[in-house]
Amino acid sequence: MGTRRFLVLNGPNLNLLGEREPEVYGSVTLEEVEVRCRRWGEERGVELRFAQSNHEGVLLDRLQEARRDCAGGVFNPGAYTHTSVALRDCVAALRIPVVEVHLSNTHAREPFRRRSLLAPVAAGRVEGFGAAGYLLALEGLLGILRERGL
Amino acid sequence: MGTRRFLVLNGPNLNLLGEREPEVYGSVTLEEVEVRCRRWGEERGVELRFAQSNHEGVLLDRLQEARRDCAGGVFNPGAYTHTSVALRDCVAALRIPVVEVHLSNTHAREPFRRRSLLAPVAAGRVEGFGAAGYLLALEGLLGILRERGL
Amino acid sequence: MGTRRFLVLNGPNLNLLGEREPEVYGSVTLEEVEVRCRRWGEERGVELRFAQSNHEGVLLDRLQEARRDCAGGVFNPGAYTHTSVALRDCVAALRIPVVEVHLSNTHAREPFRRRSLLAPVAAGRVEGFGAAGYLLALEGLLGILRERGL
Amino acid sequence: MGTRRFLVLNGPNLNLLGEREPEVYGSVTLEEVEVRCRRWGEERGVELRFAQSNHEGVLLDRLQEARRDCAGGVFNPGAYTHTSVALRDCVAALRIPVVEVHLSNTHAREPFRRRSLLAPVAAGRVEGFGAAGYLLALEGLLGILRERGL
Amino acid sequence: MGTRRFLVLNGPNLNLLGEREPEVYGSVTLEEVEVRCRRWGEERGVELRFAQSNHEGVLLDRLQEARRDCAGGVFNPGAYTHTSVALRDCVAALRIPVVEVHLSNTHAREPFRRRSLLAPVAAGRVEGFGAAGYLLALEGLLGILRERGL
Amino acid sequence: MGTRRFLVLNGPNLNLLGEREPEVYGSVTLEEVEVRCRRWGEERGVELRFAQSNHEGVLLDRLQEARRDCAGGVFNPGAYTHTSVALRDCVAALRIPVVEVHLSNTHAREPFRRRSLLAPVAAGRVEGFGAAGYLLALEGLLGILRERGL
Amino acid sequence: MGTRRFLVLNGPNLNLLGEREPEVYGSVTLEEVEVRCRRWGEERGVELRFAQSNHEGVLLDRLQEARRDCAGGVFNPGAYTHTSVALRDCVAALRIPVVEVHLSNTHAREPFRRRSLLAPVAAGRVEGFGAAGYLLALEGLLGILRERGL
Amino acid sequence: MGTRRFLVLNGPNLNLLGEREPEVYGSVTLEEVEVRCRRWGEERGVELRFAQSNHEGVLLDRLQEARRDCAGGVFNPGAYTHTSVALRDCVAALRIPVVEVHLSNTHAREPFRRRSLLAPVAAGRVEGFGAAGYLLALEGLLGILRERGL
Amino acid sequence: MGTRRFLVLNGPNLNLLGEREPEVYGSVTLEEVEVRCRRWGEERGVELRFAQSNHEGVLLDRLQEARRDCAGGVFNPGAYTHTSVALRDCVAALRIPVVEVHLSNTHAREPFRRRSLLAPVAAGRVEGFGAAGYLLALEGLLGILRERGL
Amino acid sequence: MGTRRFLVLNGPNLNLLGEREPEVYGSVTLEEVEVRCRRWGEERGVELRFAQSNHEGVLLDRLQEARRDCAGGVFNPGAYTHTSVALRDCVAALRIPVVEVHLSNTHAREPFRRRSLLAPVAAGRVEGFGAAGYLLALEGLLGILRERGL
Amino acid sequence: MGTRRFLVLNGPNLNLLGEREPEVYGSVTLEEVEVRCRRWGEERGVELRFAQSNHEGVLLDRLQEARRDCAGGVFNPGAYTHTSVALRDCVAALRIPVVEVHLSNTHAREPFRRRSLLAPVAAGRVEGFGAAGYLLALEGLLGILRERGL
Amino acid sequence: MGTRRFLVLNGPNLNLLGEREPEVYGSVTLEEVEVRCRRWGEERGVELRFAQSNHEGVLLDRLQEARRDCAGGVFNPGAYTHTSVALRDCVAALRIPVVEVHLSNTHAREPFRRRSLLAPVAAGRVEGFGAAGYLLALEGLLGILRERGL
Repeated sequence: MGTRRFLVLNGPNLNLLGEREPEVYGSVTLEEVEVRCRRWGEERGVELRFAQSNHEGVLLDRLQEARRDCAGGVFNPGAYTHTSVALRDCVAALRIPVVEVHLSNTHAREPFRRRSLLAPVAAGRVEGFGAAGYLLALEGLLGILRERGL
Repeated sequence: MGTRRFLVLNGPNLNLLGEREPEVYGSVTLEEVEVRCRRWGEERGVELRFAQSNHEGVLLDRLQEARRDCAGGVFNPGAYTHTSVALRDCVAALRIPVVEVHLSNTHAREPFRRRSLLAPVAAGRVEGFGAAGYLLALEGLLGILRERGL
Repeated sequence: MGTRRFLVLNGPNLNLLGEREPEVYGSVTLEEVEVRCRRWGEERGVELRFAQSNHEGVLLDRLQEARRDCAGGVFNPGAYTHTSVALRDCVAALRIPVVEVHLSNTHAREPFRRRSLLAPVAAGRVEGFGAAGYLLALEGLLGILRERGL
Repeated sequence: MGTRRFLVLNGPNLNLLGEREPEVYGSVTLEEVEVRCRRWGEERGVELRFAQSNHEGVLLDRLQEARRDCAGGVFNPGAYTHTSVALRDCVAALRIPVVEVHLSNTHAREPFRRRSLLAPVAAGRVEGFGAAGYLLALEGLLGILRERGL
Repeated sequence: MGTRRFLVLNGPNLNLLGEREPEVYGSVTLEEVEVRCRRWGEERGVELRFAQSNHEGVLLDRLQEARRDCAGGVFNPGAYTHTSVALRDCVAALRIPVVEVHLSNTHAREPFRRRSLLAPVAAGRVEGFGAAGYLLALEGLLGILRERGL
Repeated sequence: MGTRRFLVLNGPNLNLLGEREPEVYGSVTLEEVEVRCRRWGEERGVELRFAQSNHEGVLLDRLQEARRDCAGGVFNPGAYTHTSVALRDCVAALRIPVVEVHLSNTHAREPFRRRSLLAPVAAGRVEGFGAAGYLLALEGLLGILRERGL
Repeated sequence: MGTRRFLVLNGPNLNLLGEREPEVYGSVTLEEVEVRCRRWGEERGVELRFAQSNHEGVLLDRLQEARRDCAGGVFNPGAYTHTSVALRDCVAALRIPVVEVHLSNTHAREPFRRRSLLAPVAAGRVEGFGAAGYLLALEGLLGILRERGL
Repeated sequence: MGTRRFLVLNGPNLNLLGEREPEVYGSVTLEEVEVRCRRWGEERGVELRFAQSNHEGVLLDRLQEARRDCAGGVFNPGAYTHTSVALRDCVAALRIPVVEVHLSNTHAREPFRRRSLLAPVAAGRVEGFGAAGYLLALEGLLGILRERGL
Repeated sequence: MGTRRFLVLNGPNLNLLGEREPEVYGSVTLEEVEVRCRRWGEERGVELRFAQSNHEGVLLDRLQEARRDCAGGVFNPGAYTHTSVALRDCVAALRIPVVEVHLSNTHAREPFRRRSLLAPVAAGRVEGFGAAGYLLALEGLLGILRERGL
Repeated sequence: MGTRRFLVLNGPNLNLLGEREPEVYGSVTLEEVEVRCRRWGEERGVELRFAQSNHEGVLLDRLQEARRDCAGGVFNPGAYTHTSVALRDCVAALRIPVVEVHLSNTHAREPFRRRSLLAPVAAGRVEGFGAAGYLLALEGLLGILRERGL
Repeated sequence: MGTRRFLVLNGPNLNLLGEREPEVYGSVTLEEVEVRCRRWGEERGVELRFAQSNHEGVLLDRLQEARRDCAGGVFNPGAYTHTSVALRDCVAALRIPVVEVHLSNTHAREPFRRRSLLAPVAAGRVEGFGAAGYLLALEGLLGILRERGL
Repeated sequence: MGTRRFLVLNGPNLNLLGEREPEVYGSVTLEEVEVRCRRWGEERGVELRFAQSNHEGVLLDRLQEARRDCAGGVFNPGAYTHTSVALRDCVAALRIPVVEVHLSNTHAREPFRRRSLLAPVAAGRVEGFGAAGYLLALEGLLGILRERGL
């Protein structure tokens, strides 16, 4: 696979990052996260597709597309982590690895945030590192693909 | 803090790594994980203290010591993840950040493995990346300490 | 009612049919299912409206429309079976019968797939027959309407 | 397999059909169901064995026999649906497909009727179509056998 | 704040009001609710933004906008009350008060309607008063803003 | 019904209002609530009967009396909300509508406060508006009686 | 024991008997129940003490007294059946047998009515026979005392 | 109905009465219970049909017959109380009243004995009076039939 | 605070102490407990207010008064421990410390006795020491007040 | 007791042994199990009564008989292990020891197989040893009887 | 028993006392607790054995020894309170009374801290009094032994 | 494998055997169990390694060693049966069969003893036969190894 391409997908309310409850989610905006990720991509020769949506259906559409044009994905499903069987089924249906990432440590918050419907089908999980977690997730994804010889 | 020192702590049965159910845990041994971690430490100027024990009490003693001589910890509590309130209390009592790491994706296995007693007090969590997860965890830990200005 | 019209509605990820986990869902595509259904419709003098969407909102809009222009519906809600109270409320609000259909036997899979929020308001249910289940569902729907003298 | 033979088996209280709570189960008697099924069998060249019993043990004996002399089964276990592990084990032990059928939509009734012990081992399930459901089940069973090349 | 502006937001199937199960929801249509609310607004000098959607994503987008252009909100999330963590997170992320309103008394219906994911982050709750509940909610919202000196 | 009369009933510990945990319940006393309610009553031509007791039995006696001498009730059952089947049965036995009111948003507090035994038999519910909620409840009650032509 | 004396005790809302939800509780008043019981007592030479209260504390006081002046009791705890550990403890502390009686079949109503805290310490239980159940309970109590040779 | 006829039906292990755990079930044998019941029947002009079986199917058959030849039933389902949906469905399908009776107080024993599947469809329930409970049950059944004018 | 005054409050059925189930609660009467407590008070210069009631409302009234005239309380809520949210709310509303005391070890008895609604708001808890526990509780209360410099 | 006699009883579907799911239950038939058991009996001077039935009632009848003619029993209740309170009650009513045996390790299978209703009243339990488990169970039973001096 | 000897045993992380989360556990160190206890011992003529360990096994060994050389024990099992069946079994196996003590009120913290596996076998329990609780526990233990005439 | 070697491992508190609650565990000491096992070993030509520890870590170390030097194991994990995921993981990681043994019938005791974490990975299970169970377990283990041709 000549150039690699990764999808970095963000779910509902993540467009409010930096503005929303900064004591939980930090003060970095999603644009800044994107900048950091792209810088990482340039260093590693990985092209990044970045998307955010509040619409479960749009996220599904975007994930389905990724099976055609991306080697892997980093996905922060936001609140849909806890409620969407559809996103879980979609990731399971893809043949590319998807790493789940969360800004906060979901286990240190309300009990209902402990259940991730996505987790059982994720290739790996990274949580609690704030914006830096996206880079760890990308790094981990790259490692998984290398291990698989891709 | 001149030289940084991190504790890398491993719980029960992790000494069997490489030999034990390789389809779940991979074929890398704990010695090889240690080698990779030390290499990472040398590149970053971080000294690593490496320990493994099957004894909950030894893990507690070692974690308590770390509050004196380490800036942070990476901890794979193995089966004690799911049963030890004592380890959780110990990590909460320390003032240094501890990152939880698991070789496998604990959510893709038996239901009882989904509950981590440690998680609510962990600084961050990394799981499902096999041996590579230790490096991601160390990297994440370093980031947390930098963010805190340590 | 001169010509009958039925809605055949499909939920998230069903557009991947034939490609997605064929050991669970079979190798027939959604287009082929549509062809078979249309052939059935022609034999019975029933016009079929066929739709698929990954968007819960689009499915709701389409179901609401059906109360105007269709005599009944066959609905495979996919993953929304287990999570959507909104689709359930919509079917309950319609006055036309809706038959629930699933390709796989949902009871032979993960426990969370056993709970169908739609089931209590469905006119009938057919599951486990693969693509053939759509024809059984249409046949059953036709019978229900005949019984009601429609 | 020259002539096909199917077992149509009915569990406890189904002999009261037509007489018992007609607002739930309809006014068709079990004899009339049998007549309709036999007519279907004649059209398709399938011989039907019809049986009903209030005795779990008799149902088990009859199902065990079917593994010798029938190509498949349509089974309405009545109340044993919710309580009999023995019938479930028996169907699992048979190598012939068994379709589960219910007159009413079991999900629209008392919560305890939602749990079907048989469901996970059934080849397919049809419910809520009243007496017409037996014909859909037979049709579905025939399709399953054809798909398997039997 | 010269002119006040409030968002009045309605979730899935509420466009069917008046037509859908009138014994539960009454015979008033959503258009009539809007008329009554606007009349209330004119009396109190409050400008109302009125919106309804079956799409969770559209509701999220609309709520996010409100943090810019509205002083508060009255929200009937319909079925999403019971299933949407995303809407809850969105309301929690806004800094304006949002009052939850329901036409029927949700506690007098199916058990699953008793759990409101939105409730813990709502400023106040009004339920069971039919269309009149919107006016009580608007009145209550106005009082909350006055109390806060806005 | 010439003059209307409403019962405004308050349960245990509400006599401590203003003094008890003011960050939860506000600094208004029950006497002040009564004053505001009476002012509302005078404007609407409704006579109010006001009562508070820490005794479940006294509350029951008072509610039973109300079926004789009041057209409706506004009831804040305090802690008995969560534990008293007797009060629920009493309200169900009355033929007059009773509106449930709470000062705080019970859903934003301890989990055991989410269960209201009274809710399923209440005519409407108002919570989270502090002392102002009593006026909304009275207003709502008046609307319900008008709707019923009383 | 020369003359026998039995306590017949009734809990909250039972004073509304005949008036309250007659489709559930029948149209007989508590006064009429008392008359029938007294007639039974006269035939059997048993003196009856009859009491009703909405106050849990009064019921406790009355039961405690009964250990001094009654040979046994018939107790309809009404709603306290489901919530009062204190009444259970009191009956357990008495050394005289107490028979639990309910007018309606508590198992045919809401699920929370199925749990009787009193039941494990009752000498016997009679439910579902309406007012006639008091006479069955008295008859049963008499038999228990005779069997014990009292 | 000239002569009345009642069925007195006993479930599994009740043939061991008198011999089996006499500290729980008493020392009276089932034959002696029958004698007492017949004596009661003679006094009241009621003919009794007495039956016992360890077979759930036989009990079902016998209950079904009773709808033809008996005016009501007294049924001690023994262990099937807790496990048989079939017997519950059968009693619900009959149009004659059936009173449930138990020798011991089922609530004072193991928790699983507290759940009676039969209870919600029983006309009345009597438990804890030992053998005397059969007579109370018969008396109660007679009263129910009289009340219904039969 | 010149003279200290403590409330010693006892809930339902504790007036039966010494007489009631002595194998569980011991043979000491409540009067004797009072004597011992008063002797302790005289030695420490603490005036004791002693009260017992079977009425939840009376206990609430008495606790509320204590916030005026007592420096702290020792409370054995008896059966209300497990059922009264009102008493819990009352203790939380007081600003004086209240120690919970039980004669028996509540954890060695029926499972429902393990849940104490009061516990989360108690200043301390003492159980299982019989009558001697009151003295330990008083001693502990005194220590708490000293620590707070009162 | 001159000659000893043991009952070896087998529940539903065990007649299919050797044929049914051999990967779970092994390829030994029930006839072969019987042969091995009889050989064991001859060596130890124990006469064996061997029986199998799919009918819960027949198993009950057979167990009841055993109290007359056998010194102990070895019982594999098959699926009735998980559903039959009647068999449990029967074993508890017998005065002879009964050892529970299972071919497979029931804990390594579906969760519902973990609950054995029989277990609490069994004298001992042996599972997971396949056909050899019957001999271990017989040996264990013999030991129990010797220990009791029988 | 000439001189009395008591074991005072402390579980995991209690060696961090004074340093660890002082807002929960206070600022007194374990050494200071020991000093206070010894002073108490000298006043009462009781010799104290003091021990702390993070190792469950060491705690078990120490408790087992105590059955030989101590008249009773005061045990703060720390986190093992909630997870160790082994410590519970050990205390149950000893014949000497053991009093359970906790520094904080375990009921006012995380829900999982409410379950004490030790509690059902403890002679008494003291919690929430901080370091002073050890003295109350020792005093209580002394009383228990005196009551038993030891 | 020339000489066979088996590990016989015993968990916490089993060193108290004979002394501890003899009515549950019998009066045989662990030393006597060892003697009986060794005698069995000599007869069968099996060398036994016998060990007991109260330390979970020591048990883990010993089990891990066994994978090198033993052909199989008999393990009584005592209280760790119910709490140790680590021991379960260890047994699963070994490639030698391990038979679980318990002296008492764990199902006839407290509910929490019914859950064995080890059971799903045990080769077989024997419980309720007292000390004799060790011999049955050894015999069963030998059979398993023979069946596997070892």
